[in-house]
Amino acid sequence: MFKAKIYVNYKPSVLDPQAEAVKTALSRMGHDNVTHVLYGKYFELTLTSTDKASAQAEVETICDRLLANVNMETYRFTLVPVPVEVD
Amino acid sequence: MFKAKIYVNYKPSVLDPQAEAVKTALSRMGHDNVTHVLYGKYFELTLTSTDKASAQAEVETICDRLLANVNMETYRFTLVPVPVEVD
Repeated sequence: MFKAKIYVNYKPSVLDPQAEAVKTALSRMGHDNVTHVLYGKYFELTLTSTDKASAQAEVETICDRLLANVNMETYRFTLVPVPVEVD
Repeated sequence: MFKAKIYVNYKPSVLDPQAEAVKTALSRMGHDNVTHVLYGKYFELTLTSTDKASAQAEVETICDRLLANVNMETYRFTLVPVPVEVD
């Protein structure tokens, strides 16, 4: 089993209105020492695959087809082996 | 300078409709080997603070007051020192 930790966020060339809103709010709250904000989505998927290469290919497909809008967003992920629980 | 990597997601006791929607969609797409989905928000804040303890306290305040709804969500973060760029 593998756990995929997936990060999806806007490409740097795309305006991110949510990050801008957070930055404006922080400034209004007096947190002027926050110079940069990135806002993204984070997913953890648990896969029963036993083979890392096939898990990697599957997560790429899932990101391309479902989790990320590849026109505007980029994604990156890491795969962590999960020990199978013994009942 | 520090970079704060912040993860915000629903508490396990709270139903996460977005994670459920992702899981349903994956199942419909034939990815039945995905057994668990966690959906959350991911923020990266860059702070000009030079002191790790004060950066930590500030990020906690920001999470409690702005980034997370502490009634329904939990957050965790890590602080990474950022080398100051020399022009």
